[in-house]
Amino acid sequence: MTDKPKKVVLAYSGGLDTSIILKWLQTEYGAEVVTFTADLGQGEEVEPARKKAELLGIKPENIFIDDLREEFVRDYVFPMFRANTVYEGQYLLGTSIARPLIAKRQIEIARQVGADAVCHGATGKGNDQVRFELGYYALEPDIKVIAPWREWSFASREALIDFAEKHQIPINKDKRGEAPFSVDANLLHSSSEGKVLEDPAVEAPEYVHQRTISPEAAPDKATVIEIEFERGDPVAIDGERLSPASLLARLNQLGHDNGIGRLDLVENRFVGMKSRGVYETPGGTILLAAHRGIESITLDGGAMHLKDSIMPRYAELIYNGFWFAPEREMLQALIDRSQEHVSGKVRMKLYKGNATVIGRESPLSLYDQDLVTFEEGQSGYDHRDAAGFIRLNALRLRIAAKRERRVS
Amino acid sequence: MTDKPKKVVLAYSGGLDTSIILKWLQTEYGAEVVTFTADLGQGEEVEPARKKAELLGIKPENIFIDDLREEFVRDYVFPMFRANTVYEGQYLLGTSIARPLIAKRQIEIARQVGADAVCHGATGKGNDQVRFELGYYALEPDIKVIAPWREWSFASREALIDFAEKHQIPINKDKRGEAPFSVDANLLHSSSEGKVLEDPAVEAPEYVHQRTISPEAAPDKATVIEIEFERGDPVAIDGERLSPASLLARLNQLGHDNGIGRLDLVENRFVGMKSRGVYETPGGTILLAAHRGIESITLDGGAMHLKDSIMPRYAELIYNGFWFAPEREMLQALIDRSQEHVSGKVRMKLYKGNATVIGRESPLSLYDQDLVTFEEGQSGYDHRDAAGFIRLNALRLRIAAKRERRVS
Amino acid sequence: MTDKPKKVVLAYSGGLDTSIILKWLQTEYGAEVVTFTADLGQGEEVEPARKKAELLGIKPENIFIDDLREEFVRDYVFPMFRANTVYEGQYLLGTSIARPLIAKRQIEIARQVGADAVCHGATGKGNDQVRFELGYYALEPDIKVIAPWREWSFASREALIDFAEKHQIPINKDKRGEAPFSVDANLLHSSSEGKVLEDPAVEAPEYVHQRTISPEAAPDKATVIEIEFERGDPVAIDGERLSPASLLARLNQLGHDNGIGRLDLVENRFVGMKSRGVYETPGGTILLAAHRGIESITLDGGAMHLKDSIMPRYAELIYNGFWFAPEREMLQALIDRSQEHVSGKVRMKLYKGNATVIGRESPLSLYDQDLVTFEEGQSGYDHRDAAGFIRLNALRLRIAAKRERRVS
Amino acid sequence: MTDKPKKVVLAYSGGLDTSIILKWLQTEYGAEVVTFTADLGQGEEVEPARKKAELLGIKPENIFIDDLREEFVRDYVFPMFRANTVYEGQYLLGTSIARPLIAKRQIEIARQVGADAVCHGATGKGNDQVRFELGYYALEPDIKVIAPWREWSFASREALIDFAEKHQIPINKDKRGEAPFSVDANLLHSSSEGKVLEDPAVEAPEYVHQRTISPEAAPDKATVIEIEFERGDPVAIDGERLSPASLLARLNQLGHDNGIGRLDLVENRFVGMKSRGVYETPGGTILLAAHRGIESITLDGGAMHLKDSIMPRYAELIYNGFWFAPEREMLQALIDRSQEHVSGKVRMKLYKGNATVIGRESPLSLYDQDLVTFEEGQSGYDHRDAAGFIRLNALRLRIAAKRERRVS
Repeated sequence: MTDKPKKVVLAYSGGLDTSIILKWLQTEYGAEVVTFTADLGQGEEVEPARKKAELLGIKPENIFIDDLREEFVRDYVFPMFRANTVYEGQYLLGTSIARPLIAKRQIEIARQVGADAVCHGATGKGNDQVRFELGYYALEPDIKVIAPWREWSFASREALIDFAEKHQIPINKDKRGEAPFSVDANLLHSSSEGKVLEDPAVEAPEYVHQRTISPEAAPDKATVIEIEFERGDPVAIDGERLSPASLLARLNQLGHDNGIGRLDLVENRFVGMKSRGVYETPGGTILLAAHRGIESITLDGGAMHLKDSIMPRYAELIYNGFWFAPEREMLQALIDRSQEHVSGKVRMKLYKGNATVIGRESPLSLYDQDLVTFEEGQSGYDHRDAAGFIRLNALRLRIAAKRERRVS
Repeated sequence: MTDKPKKVVLAYSGGLDTSIILKWLQTEYGAEVVTFTADLGQGEEVEPARKKAELLGIKPENIFIDDLREEFVRDYVFPMFRANTVYEGQYLLGTSIARPLIAKRQIEIARQVGADAVCHGATGKGNDQVRFELGYYALEPDIKVIAPWREWSFASREALIDFAEKHQIPINKDKRGEAPFSVDANLLHSSSEGKVLEDPAVEAPEYVHQRTISPEAAPDKATVIEIEFERGDPVAIDGERLSPASLLARLNQLGHDNGIGRLDLVENRFVGMKSRGVYETPGGTILLAAHRGIESITLDGGAMHLKDSIMPRYAELIYNGFWFAPEREMLQALIDRSQEHVSGKVRMKLYKGNATVIGRESPLSLYDQDLVTFEEGQSGYDHRDAAGFIRLNALRLRIAAKRERRVS
Repeated sequence: MTDKPKKVVLAYSGGLDTSIILKWLQTEYGAEVVTFTADLGQGEEVEPARKKAELLGIKPENIFIDDLREEFVRDYVFPMFRANTVYEGQYLLGTSIARPLIAKRQIEIARQVGADAVCHGATGKGNDQVRFELGYYALEPDIKVIAPWREWSFASREALIDFAEKHQIPINKDKRGEAPFSVDANLLHSSSEGKVLEDPAVEAPEYVHQRTISPEAAPDKATVIEIEFERGDPVAIDGERLSPASLLARLNQLGHDNGIGRLDLVENRFVGMKSRGVYETPGGTILLAAHRGIESITLDGGAMHLKDSIMPRYAELIYNGFWFAPEREMLQALIDRSQEHVSGKVRMKLYKGNATVIGRESPLSLYDQDLVTFEEGQSGYDHRDAAGFIRLNALRLRIAAKRERRVS
Repeated sequence: MTDKPKKVVLAYSGGLDTSIILKWLQTEYGAEVVTFTADLGQGEEVEPARKKAELLGIKPENIFIDDLREEFVRDYVFPMFRANTVYEGQYLLGTSIARPLIAKRQIEIARQVGADAVCHGATGKGNDQVRFELGYYALEPDIKVIAPWREWSFASREALIDFAEKHQIPINKDKRGEAPFSVDANLLHSSSEGKVLEDPAVEAPEYVHQRTISPEAAPDKATVIEIEFERGDPVAIDGERLSPASLLARLNQLGHDNGIGRLDLVENRFVGMKSRGVYETPGGTILLAAHRGIESITLDGGAMHLKDSIMPRYAELIYNGFWFAPEREMLQALIDRSQEHVSGKVRMKLYKGNATVIGRESPLSLYDQDLVTFEEGQSGYDHRDAAGFIRLNALRLRIAAKRERRVS
């Protein structure tokens, strides 16, 4: 990257690290900085970021603060849940799915203000740098990308703090030492990693959890709820229609209260190493079970098996940051095509860490009680059909068995 | 099938239904009947079947009673768990995995006694008929297969009972009416379906459960255990080496006591309709989580993603009864190849329905604390490598974005 | 099937076999017969079928003759070619792709005339019975299906001919004996199988070929053509815009004249056995190569690899007769989503059996001469990026190698 | 890479470019250079490389010249052909498959001579750098890797030549200007790319072809050969048993003489851009067709479809350089497991660019003439089985169709 950036849109949380980056962009490049702070449901106020940005010399017209919660859930979280997406069998991709939206909005702002560069605060060892930058490049191929953690020369946390003090960046007392773990959060989940979590043999301490109480601390009595789906997406809880973000927030509260959605995982990063994270996805965990529940009666078996077979690849694409890649969009087209009739109601029991489907019903159900009953019923199912079905399925196996005999 | 069978090996449980079949084979075909009763850990004594068979006129040398528990777990259950196998995202295939072994042993006995036919008691609407018969045909391509439920003319349960009484088959009083649901069980799981479970909107009653107490009834205090794995299979619990069957039995007890392993599922049968089952797989549920746990630190990411991507197909093959098909064996070769280094210890917390990994360690671990730490460490990871990695991964997206711009 | 059919729509070619079926439906069931004859480009006149039907007593309003060539190519052949579909690595599915359209039209006619049954002339050992009937059932789930070859009691060709003579069905002299092979044809291909082709060790005789001259007989001089594509479908040849059917007919002629598109294949039927067929797909063979050619410059690599990976399953679905199944439609959605920019021109050389791409160009090309050139160029490609790219791709391999060393 | 390499094993062809690299390693790093020259069947003498190395000051004990042809074909080419591997539908991976062997041998030599670094002559834009280096790292995780084309500061071809002259490296007169295209060759194929081939709209000139005459120049009479396979690998031609390398060489000659195996392709590189190559794989093209031919009668349908479905991923792994990755080895285990009975003879007709299977036979054939014949035969195939087979396959489609009706 030969040319210095002139105007940079920074993904700005208002915290210490991105404040340091802000100042570093000003001092290192002499760049005009535009801050972008998104409310994705991380559970912190975003408005304070405005004050901090102003304090650091950002012009009011260069401060962007957006509430993206509805867009996040409607256009990113729900489409992903249509596929029952889990990475490496377990992870609900709460961090991965937020990055493309942030990248997209950053690029939109860059266009609006005529910036030639974007900047994020992700480190050089993680997945997030990849997700941000693949998003940037996919949407604005010639944008300059600044990743300070890969570029600057601060050799230690100390050096960073010194820089901050030198530039009058306010530092909370508790930030002087290093945090015992690092956190990312949005409306779908919170994740914790690093430090006290680095030894995968050691149980995660209770205090790293932020979105859930422990199963042990949850009530001794189950909560039963009913979730209604339309075309693969949840639309109501216990009969109350809710916007996407409100619905997910409601599920989060229910999950939180019942100790649901904790995951302690060692996963494979795109950049090649294994890492350990503690994830809390209370609402998402309920939603995944409920979505499988409504699909179980409304989705054709062949369609389900196809979806299941492509899901790992879809999950990998999202995890690796390829949300805006054509193959992700192709898989989404396949998935969305399957959800037309995935509508109906699922009853869930929430109890001390368990989110269990206990009933499902739909006017679009493919479940046919008459067909399945042990009596032949009116359904026209003829037991003898099974004989032919089996014999033709067996034919190639029989031919191969005869060869085996011939040979041996 | 033109010729009458002369000598038939019957999969005989000793219960009413297979006793009726036994008698029907004798009266309908005048066939000599050989009974085969397997102990697969279903939790009932198998020896009483000998008495019943004798009572129904079976010659002692025609009565086979085998304890197959170790073979079942070692050669069928564990290989399947190496793949983290679940059908339709959830079902641990407890019934499916037992059928090939029964079929195999029936065929071995048929060869030994010179029988020309085999017979099972599965109905004409289910998956089990397929699984038994694909097994038979794959191993003995010209065997005659008798499936009484598809063939006989009894129009109702009444008619069956009448036939039983006429032939002095002992009938428990409670068998006169129909059972409120039907059960299959072995060391891996028990399944319940039919009758009271036929409406998927209605919660399964507590009394259908047989292998587990409810999470509500489980202790208020968690149990922590340590499972040791060697090359993908569990070999010890809390330091005690156990044979495969003993180990699974121990896990079953632990799961039972902690309310773990219940599943209420609407699934897609191979024969084309949806059905609802209640499964209890206490030990298997713990084992699946533990196996994922040990893989998470010992299995390469690329290997894991490949395994995950073929798993749905592998599960479908087992569910559909293709255990002895070449494609199942090919997938097994792929899976087994990956397990060479999947050895180590996993600590699990069992609590009211939850089976949670809380620690994993292995001398073969691929997790490298030094690599993942936020400091650069000694590992030789160079942050700047990530820039090149991202830029080349982004290259095709940038080229496509430039086209988009050209076009629009 | 308990009830006799009252009114049957028969897929009627006008030939001897379907004439016998027609008469058999009348005599066996006393059914009113409605004939449906489709022009799918099989290369025979369809109007003579009207005369024959009338001769056999069909009322004029019960005779349907449709030219389906454009619909066939536009809605069936082209969508399939968007996926570069080949079954078992080689077969272009010429027969398979025609069956769903015939089934669909038969069902439409059945609804129009109030028929309660449909009937086809496919045998009980082949794939076509499956394809027809899966189509019928998918579109009209309660339709009665009559498959005379599986039902009637004629024990030999002789008996059939006797029946025909008895009912004054005209018989060409050469039909008395059996044909040396059987043929299916439509605008996409012709297939030959049976009799002289049954030994797969023996070369197919020249005279079975119908759509192509042999490479040896083709001109000594190559023909060069240019095919233009829009959104994945061919629209013009040598600058002349053509309708789908006309375009395929033109390609067929070009392929025929240059000995292109012969395939001698042993394939695996859905019903379980292997069979040998000789296929001629002159235009389709050119089209497949040309479509790959235009995709090679206009389709993103990730998109292409995803398409390639799902193609075998898509091909299997079509071969097996699942055109109207939801999973085929889901895959089609994925495929179609990829074709938006697959537009441009491909130059092909046709010469003695070879159809070779010799040039491709498109305003939507993703090929960037500047990027690929050995000099660094203006493209902004930085050679050093490759170092990081490789090192991160290698990271997990290095970690595993270090483990290997530790272990051994 | 902080430390300077002390002893470097260089993949040395003896040509101008790698001679410059040799000298650059000496002058830039003061490193002791060990040259490794492999005979992979590229068609050039390797012994002259010894003289050139000596001339450039390499000690005799530091010059390694190996004939790897048999190992190359036996352990790399043949295993790959067991999978019918093609990249992007067409490319036989002739370059990709040779790289891992070179890398492996280089590492072996490095261990033997105690070198701390390896070096290759691949450029910074291509796939080969990735393939070499992934191989190095997978086998020797801490090896230093030197990629001069990414590191040195020569700005142009001119500068390189100047450097060569300055260091008394002999330069052929025709190397002064740039070659009109660049070539890679081994026993499997030759590839040409760059310069005159860079515009994909322009036909490749005849003179770039090295391994084949054109179809037009090939004889007017077909050549018929018989290839025998054992367990998936070819072992004899026309009854003559040949070693792997001799057999492939024989096929190459046959392909060359009949104008077989040319491919003009625009492909997607792993590093993200599209490139155009002209490949000639005469023997491999014949072998691929023949292998499919023998599989068509000896490989079970389910096994074949599984192989076909994973092949694109296997091809991608090889193309991208992951030969030594665990997932490639897992796929190989799957593939190899399928080849046990892939033995027999295939007759091929070679004619002007066409390699056509005209006959196949095997004592292990699964093709059963009796089963497939139109008459019912002795095979025990019951036409009525097909009815049940179809009805159960249709069941879910019918249920869905009834829903559709309910809904609309």
